Amino acid sequence: MPDKLQTFQTIKQAIDQADEILLIAHQKPDGDTLGANLAMANWLRDIGKHFHIYCLHPVPQHLRYLPLWEHILYTDEEIAHIPFDLIIFIDSSSLSYAGIGPLLEKIKGEPILINIDHHPTNPNFAKINLVEPTASSASELIYQFFESQQIQITRDMATCILTGILTDTGGFSNLATTQASMEIAGKLLGYGAKFRTITNFTVRNKTVNTLKLWGRALDRLTRHEDGVVSTVITQNDLLECEATKDDLEGIANFLNALQDAKIVMVLKEDPAGFVKVSLRTTQEGVDVSALAQKFGGGGHKKAAGFSVPGKLIHTPKGWRIEGV
Amino acid sequence: MPDKLQTFQTIKQAIDQADEILLIAHQKPDGDTLGANLAMANWLRDIGKHFHIYCLHPVPQHLRYLPLWEHILYTDEEIAHIPFDLIIFIDSSSLSYAGIGPLLEKIKGEPILINIDHHPTNPNFAKINLVEPTASSASELIYQFFESQQIQITRDMATCILTGILTDTGGFSNLATTQASMEIAGKLLGYGAKFRTITNFTVRNKTVNTLKLWGRALDRLTRHEDGVVSTVITQNDLLECEATKDDLEGIANFLNALQDAKIVMVLKEDPAGFVKVSLRTTQEGVDVSALAQKFGGGGHKKAAGFSVPGKLIHTPKGWRIEGV
Repeated sequence: MPDKLQTFQTIKQAIDQADEILLIAHQKPDGDTLGANLAMANWLRDIGKHFHIYCLHPVPQHLRYLPLWEHILYTDEEIAHIPFDLIIFIDSSSLSYAGIGPLLEKIKGEPILINIDHHPTNPNFAKINLVEPTASSASELIYQFFESQQIQITRDMATCILTGILTDTGGFSNLATTQASMEIAGKLLGYGAKFRTITNFTVRNKTVNTLKLWGRALDRLTRHEDGVVSTVITQNDLLECEATKDDLEGIANFLNALQDAKIVMVLKEDPAGFVKVSLRTTQEGVDVSALAQKFGGGGHKKAAGFSVPGKLIHTPKGWRIEGV
Repeated sequence: MPDKLQTFQTIKQAIDQADEILLIAHQKPDGDTLGANLAMANWLRDIGKHFHIYCLHPVPQHLRYLPLWEHILYTDEEIAHIPFDLIIFIDSSSLSYAGIGPLLEKIKGEPILINIDHHPTNPNFAKINLVEPTASSASELIYQFFESQQIQITRDMATCILTGILTDTGGFSNLATTQASMEIAGKLLGYGAKFRTITNFTVRNKTVNTLKLWGRALDRLTRHEDGVVSTVITQNDLLECEATKDDLEGIANFLNALQDAKIVMVLKEDPAGFVKVSLRTTQEGVDVSALAQKFGGGGHKKAAGFSVPGKLIHTPKGWRIEGV
């Protein structure tokens, strides 16, 4: 296997030689895939390369400050006719997770595929693979790429990369936080990364209605004998708090602050007649994806989920799921 | 005014020449004053110096992992008879805030006073003063001191310093977060700082009962016309959630996550017949300490508080304070 520096050089050469580049952010995009792809996009723009960025789903509201985010395309039509000679996947743990199956088939030409990722399960699906599970984030790898190639990191590139590192480390609180990620974050502040904007959008992004809804979820926390702590949110709660399901984003992660829970389980009623269950754990030996798989779901060891048909009913014995 | 390096050398010389050293953490101790003082204590122990550490109030539960925390003394009696020749105040914004007035009078000998702090209001109350308002924390200054004097930072010292930086920057989220604080945090991880322990104690430290109580506070959030968002917690809430007033620590800071609040106001009923009001803001031009002063309270620009006699009553028009 080629070493990292060699792979960075190969990637740089492939970009230098390419005339039409497609960057791919994974479906249901988060701060890391968008930060990493947009850092790359900002550099490609600065050096005058032709490029497009594709994502199956739109950029979430709380990440609509990343430089060039409006540049991201969501429909195949706009790019299917372009003869790409290079496609770079950043932060996609697999080709299918990238969510571009139908698009790939339509693309003209025979593009070289590059795969830059930090997920340990990545099967090295591309021609050129840089998969580094010790990195906090794909954004950290993009930083290393820029640094290794003596590419000047601009304020916009720094803002993108820091967003990726900050969100994937849970604001420098989860186990992905390493010496390298912290030191790079410091350097990115030195390059002028807009830290205040990042925290305003990614941390200070709750409304009164969101937190009223969270309040209901917290008020209903229930400790079960097996160390599971659960809570529920119904469609009626959304109505009464004048909130949307987007306002529930982050509540399961927030509950990781619990010291006395082995597994945190958040049950959310969906209007389509099922209940979505989010599972989280911070405990070393616990794998919630195994639990999710038993119910037909999936995810990561520390964060997973599944859905069951039914709705949430409050009974004298507590909340339960009633089949529909 | 002597430069920083010169002052660090003066401090080092004073420590070298001292036979009995007293370290002072400020009253109502937080992660920074304890982290900074205990980093210094661990080094003094390593080099075989005679020293004591004093604090007016006990170490809070969530900081009882800091190496040597059990070494801290709370009563004057144990140290009043010792002929100290050096007293080092770390993170005390004034001599009175240190909370050692009566103790100072009892101390035998004529100690030299050293004042290491990062609060801009510090009046340079000691003989040797190192007051650096650009530092994220007093702990960052202790790091700089060690580095400037080529002192080897052990794992225990690193754990103490990182605790101070992490807590004073709000987990690397508030405006105290700088390039230097991030880069130093990275280096401290390199020195083996026990990051997992720090986050387990300072972030993942909520119980189900604590969060049920927080849930009540969130559920009652009320937006007022002037951009103030308020909430209330009564003595009855503590009873029903089987929680204590310690469980309310952090709720006002957590509410800084609100994007649509100019000022956050948390009203807590005290059994002694008054209501404690905590004020927070993240807005550049807002000074909540000025508001607190109008009601006989005080604090910082971004975090302040006051108390009024009375208790909290729920009326059809909302919550209000009723005089007693």
